Amino acid sequence: MTALPAHSIAQLDAHWRAANYLAVGQIYLMDNPLLTEPLRPEHIKPRLLGHWGTSPGLNLVHTHLNRVIGERSLEALCVWGPGHGGPAVLANSWLEGTYSETYPDVTRDAEGMARLFRQFSFPGGVPSHVAPETPGSIHEGGELGYALAHAYGAAFDHPGLLVACVIGDGEAETGPLAASWHANKFLDPVHDGAVLPILHLNGYKIANPTVLSRIPETDLDALLRGYGHEPLYVTGSDPALVHRSMARAMDQALDRIAGIQAEARAAGTDPGREYPRWPVIVLRTPKGWTGPASVDGEPVEGTWRSHQVPLAEVRENPAHLRQLEDWLRSYRPQELFDADGRPTARVLACVPEGDRRLGAAPCANGGRLLRPLPLPPIEAHAVPVDKPGRTLHEPTRVLGHFLTQVMRDTAGRRDFRVVGPDETASNRLDDLYAATGKAWQGLTEATDRNLSRDGRVMEILSEHVCQGWLEGYLLTGRHGLFSTYEAFAHIVDSMVGQHVKWLKTSRELTWRAPIASLNYLLTSHVWRQDNNGFSHQDPGFVDHVLNKSPQVVRAYLPPDANTLLAVADHVLRSRDRVNVIVAGKQPCFDWLPVDEARTHVARGAGVWEWAGTDDGSRDPDVVLACAGDVPTMEVLAAAALLREHLPSLAVRVVNVVDIARLMPHEEHPHGMTDAEYDGLFTTDRPVVFAYHGYPWLVHRLAYRRSGHSQLHVRGYKESGTTTTPFDMVVRNDMDRYRLVMDVIDRVPGLAGRAEGLRQAMADRRVRHHDWIREHGTDLPEVAQWTWPC
Amino acid sequence: MTALPAHSIAQLDAHWRAANYLAVGQIYLMDNPLLTEPLRPEHIKPRLLGHWGTSPGLNLVHTHLNRVIGERSLEALCVWGPGHGGPAVLANSWLEGTYSETYPDVTRDAEGMARLFRQFSFPGGVPSHVAPETPGSIHEGGELGYALAHAYGAAFDHPGLLVACVIGDGEAETGPLAASWHANKFLDPVHDGAVLPILHLNGYKIANPTVLSRIPETDLDALLRGYGHEPLYVTGSDPALVHRSMARAMDQALDRIAGIQAEARAAGTDPGREYPRWPVIVLRTPKGWTGPASVDGEPVEGTWRSHQVPLAEVRENPAHLRQLEDWLRSYRPQELFDADGRPTARVLACVPEGDRRLGAAPCANGGRLLRPLPLPPIEAHAVPVDKPGRTLHEPTRVLGHFLTQVMRDTAGRRDFRVVGPDETASNRLDDLYAATGKAWQGLTEATDRNLSRDGRVMEILSEHVCQGWLEGYLLTGRHGLFSTYEAFAHIVDSMVGQHVKWLKTSRELTWRAPIASLNYLLTSHVWRQDNNGFSHQDPGFVDHVLNKSPQVVRAYLPPDANTLLAVADHVLRSRDRVNVIVAGKQPCFDWLPVDEARTHVARGAGVWEWAGTDDGSRDPDVVLACAGDVPTMEVLAAAALLREHLPSLAVRVVNVVDIARLMPHEEHPHGMTDAEYDGLFTTDRPVVFAYHGYPWLVHRLAYRRSGHSQLHVRGYKESGTTTTPFDMVVRNDMDRYRLVMDVIDRVPGLAGRAEGLRQAMADRRVRHHDWIREHGTDLPEVAQWTWPC
Repeated sequence: MTALPAHSIAQLDAHWRAANYLAVGQIYLMDNPLLTEPLRPEHIKPRLLGHWGTSPGLNLVHTHLNRVIGERSLEALCVWGPGHGGPAVLANSWLEGTYSETYPDVTRDAEGMARLFRQFSFPGGVPSHVAPETPGSIHEGGELGYALAHAYGAAFDHPGLLVACVIGDGEAETGPLAASWHANKFLDPVHDGAVLPILHLNGYKIANPTVLSRIPETDLDALLRGYGHEPLYVTGSDPALVHRSMARAMDQALDRIAGIQAEARAAGTDPGREYPRWPVIVLRTPKGWTGPASVDGEPVEGTWRSHQVPLAEVRENPAHLRQLEDWLRSYRPQELFDADGRPTARVLACVPEGDRRLGAAPCANGGRLLRPLPLPPIEAHAVPVDKPGRTLHEPTRVLGHFLTQVMRDTAGRRDFRVVGPDETASNRLDDLYAATGKAWQGLTEATDRNLSRDGRVMEILSEHVCQGWLEGYLLTGRHGLFSTYEAFAHIVDSMVGQHVKWLKTSRELTWRAPIASLNYLLTSHVWRQDNNGFSHQDPGFVDHVLNKSPQVVRAYLPPDANTLLAVADHVLRSRDRVNVIVAGKQPCFDWLPVDEARTHVARGAGVWEWAGTDDGSRDPDVVLACAGDVPTMEVLAAAALLREHLPSLAVRVVNVVDIARLMPHEEHPHGMTDAEYDGLFTTDRPVVFAYHGYPWLVHRLAYRRSGHSQLHVRGYKESGTTTTPFDMVVRNDMDRYRLVMDVIDRVPGLAGRAEGLRQAMADRRVRHHDWIREHGTDLPEVAQWTWPC
Repeated sequence: MTALPAHSIAQLDAHWRAANYLAVGQIYLMDNPLLTEPLRPEHIKPRLLGHWGTSPGLNLVHTHLNRVIGERSLEALCVWGPGHGGPAVLANSWLEGTYSETYPDVTRDAEGMARLFRQFSFPGGVPSHVAPETPGSIHEGGELGYALAHAYGAAFDHPGLLVACVIGDGEAETGPLAASWHANKFLDPVHDGAVLPILHLNGYKIANPTVLSRIPETDLDALLRGYGHEPLYVTGSDPALVHRSMARAMDQALDRIAGIQAEARAAGTDPGREYPRWPVIVLRTPKGWTGPASVDGEPVEGTWRSHQVPLAEVRENPAHLRQLEDWLRSYRPQELFDADGRPTARVLACVPEGDRRLGAAPCANGGRLLRPLPLPPIEAHAVPVDKPGRTLHEPTRVLGHFLTQVMRDTAGRRDFRVVGPDETASNRLDDLYAATGKAWQGLTEATDRNLSRDGRVMEILSEHVCQGWLEGYLLTGRHGLFSTYEAFAHIVDSMVGQHVKWLKTSRELTWRAPIASLNYLLTSHVWRQDNNGFSHQDPGFVDHVLNKSPQVVRAYLPPDANTLLAVADHVLRSRDRVNVIVAGKQPCFDWLPVDEARTHVARGAGVWEWAGTDDGSRDPDVVLACAGDVPTMEVLAAAALLREHLPSLAVRVVNVVDIARLMPHEEHPHGMTDAEYDGLFTTDRPVVFAYHGYPWLVHRLAYRRSGHSQLHVRGYKESGTTTTPFDMVVRNDMDRYRLVMDVIDRVPGLAGRAEGLRQAMADRRVRHHDWIREHGTDLPEVAQWTWPC
């Protein structure tokens, strides 16, 4: 495609100027939006909170995306990576009309323009970043680094979609972004859409030049080619020339994308090929472009000084006020808006129609596209349990069979993916490969297994990229699961925090439809790091997640395979949640038949009558509670010891699957009422609680309960090393013998009566200690233990 | 330097074979270490927990580093990035003698070899990863991604040091590692040492090929050149050829490094130059090289199947046992060890002497090199406080003056750095630039400010890289501070967890000397995100850190500038800690003169008599407690309201700086005894506690205290947006009016007496609500409030 006709450039420039005008207006003005009178201090906001620096570049990209979307009738989405891009994206949304359609009180006229300006960064108004409130967005600009991973996630299994992704050069310094460049090795040109990264080098962060803007151009070119991309450069500060160059680059990029897709789709999947060299646009324009060249004698345009508010004292300093007015008038608003404040035809000439507009992109409101997953009955995959504790299964392997069926049943729809950092097989979900492969566009070798161009298991050794992919996938209307080692879920702490905030805010927006939940399977957990030791032991991800909005967060600790299935069935049906499931991959006793497992999960916590010795007619002498697979085994072993040695003691065993059940009803939607809690745990009997993670989490959840002073929690207390499974529970005082001792110490009057048993328990702990040092394995009485009842 | 003589290659090969033999021995054997008799099942460990795949490559690197260290008399350190590198690095340490010097019971003979083998991945033994227990290490191999940042941190301000850094190709997929490649733009060839990255492409992760091993070689070359490196390639599987190629690459790399340093040091710092093109070695050898080519008919060497234990059933399967014996004998142990199991002279020919040995590198036990910081008296930088609450200062700016003096006083020693993600000025520490610049080796422009090649402020927009740099710097015997926005500290949650584990383990090793603490300044905190809104609000980093080993972790919430100085003075003197300081950058009332601030910090919590109305002669009617700058202001404002309106109410004001003081004495070294706690908070009076972060943290810390049922905590509960400072506290029910209402609701008998006041407080909240919607600013009565007493 050759150069654009001049009138088209003029149209693009008009749109760009209009967007720039509106961005400046949002940052500064609370009145006089069309400059119908000279600017006065009272037209200026009392608190100037906004960021100009990134806006003109984003406006340029949006303007040029508008053109190609319209001309080529593209289905497109844009991920706006840079922080504080709010003014630009809101300006464009208002121009194209999607803002007024979403928020009818902000009309596309002078009155609406005044509202648009005033609400920006105003108390109770709209954020400075692109956010859930922004039409057409799936990406919060506030925390940097995830744009490119989100873009890929959106493109997967959307073969008709173009996802443009603006990457700021500050953001480009982050680890998650740096890792995401390699996502092009996982994008299937046949079944997936295209990602067009636009690296915006405006040269500065808050207070520093950026790395990528200050390396030699040859290095930058080599870097992008090294990532496997074909770079196209747009550089300049003369708007007319930049418009031409940008239009040409956009056309070249889209021609190239169309060519790659046509070739791949004609050829089908051919595993011998090298991955395609997708284009990337490098846009090098000044930070704060078209803003004040200098302020108070210091250069501003093209420096870090234009990052936030280039003119800071507009209310107080008449020179600044005049400079702002000159700046605003430099866009010639009278050419851009009619007397009623409506954008002129020239401004809107490049704007596409209807759902093609970026602010109306259907997949940016992914819940609208979401279809429920076809979930098989869990009964078809459950393990038979005649009596509790007779058989062993690897819970995640059983889950893997269930997920495999889901993967099979979505083969045509392609709206379900499983992501993980190289651990799907290690986590024993590898049955999935019977239904799909691992996505891989790199070179292959004869010894490779289970790699395929169109695979829907996604593995890259970056939790950040896995999380970013899955978020992008879910936000655009699909389903998925993230399986990872428990300890390393902390790598994405900050990302999940942002996603919870996104969901919390989205749920308050009536126009955003609920999306599929973000589901974590945390396995290879703290108690079974025989191989990896202390560095791989950290159960704190649940603590982190439960600090976040209770409307959104859930955590489940299924004690066996069937319960895990029931939890999985539940979370895959849920919407707008972050669900954390903690489950082991090592052989684990089967305790519940599938129907009981389902009921147990629905209740979230319950008495296991068969495991205790109280008859339910009165409060028991002691409650043994547990949450998590290993704690459950230890509690049942302790219950068995008590049954054997203190048969008259009334022991109640309570298992908790849904840990938020412990919270007050008023604070979490899953929280029990006090009556429910007291019915399970009593108000005054000792409760010895073995919890999977940090014990104080249980106190933090249950501190308001009547019986709290009688609650004694055992759990992981950072005592770990490379050792045997049973040694781990002994080191952390959560072993069966210690739990029996805890019961003896806490039930009134028992200390004297059971002194011998207490001593026997202490002796077994010593014997264990000696045994493992000698044999390197667990005591046979532990290793071969089975539930005796 | 030309090719090595053949006998030298033979020596290197002998050393490498010996290390490989010892690595295999550690994974498999618990007896018969020298194969003096045919292998029998009882010689094999009962649980085979180890990873062979990465070992031969690490052994090759160690062998060749040995040679060049000896030949060139280098001061060198190696950061071993790949996970599960334990067997290799331990083998080398044992060969060079440093292991036996560190652990005298593991002698360098047959008996010691047997111990070396047996202890590996054995209960209570040594971990599979390189770890604190490993001589010469500063880097835990368990969590991947931080090797290169650690290496740079070690090299900064160590001009004589070569830091080799082995990067696994799995690890290379992580975000932190991908971002760290750009650290070469921050390394000053004059004042810093050199980093030699060795990218080890063995082709596979746990279960997949790696990205970098499967991109075309031209892409890989472009990528590394794009990072600004000059790549040297070593590729092969024939040991003799690889030895030659590796020796040549090592020599070329070290010649090049010496050339860069000589040139830069002759020229001095010349800010016009481009950064030097440091070498990188790409080592492409088979995974599990020299291990079994195939097992049970499946290819193993050179595939992911050699990641862990290539032969898994050695005890049970005689064919596997025979194959293991053949494998071990393939290294010809009789040539490598004498009859007593001592390494032969040929094996040891390449090993350097004394402290030159990698296992004895002095800076790998950084505490031995550590000198106390020259800290100026905080009095010299304190703000004058005649009466509380009369003046305002920005606490972090005051801290900045103090840190500037530290920076000046270490100009010659160069053992103090401040790191942060582009936020040093935003966090108001920019006075530092009076003493030093920001490290920057990239291109510069005339408008740049405060960049310098030898600067000791380090800014890159990657919290991961900042943290990795600082860890590497501290672990090698220096001091530092990490300043960051509070919310985004979560980005390094996983890293800080690993560092706490490292410190906890190190403290149990008598041979490791204490190092300077890792100090965080979290600012731009949750209450003052007027600009950034909800996405920038997360006070949970303290919660995360306080879950970790209490021997190591501390958190401080100084309420004003002088208290922040006193905290900084304390943490910069401390050792082996992770200290989190939360302090605002916005103007904040000065409450305490510096002497009182110092005492207050030493106590960690105390009554502010001047703020309350109880005379101390009896328990007060209510305790108003606070931790954090904004909560302190709201509590004091509430105290002032109570004093005005309910003068007869005995109110005690307690301020907590050191939040771990709330924990039981038995659980944290800073925890108060019950007597201390009860003395401050009473056992039965209502306590209304305004806390900076999530309120339940206070419950989790204090749940065992007698007065806990009377403890009512206000704090941040994920209710945030772009709004004014006071609106933030109102939205989260932590404002002064709400606190007064809380007091009225909780003091017995007050509800009736103070009904009018309660209603007045509720009315003010409504008025606030209306006011900010109208004016966009806080109510004047709040914005202009001062402490009245």
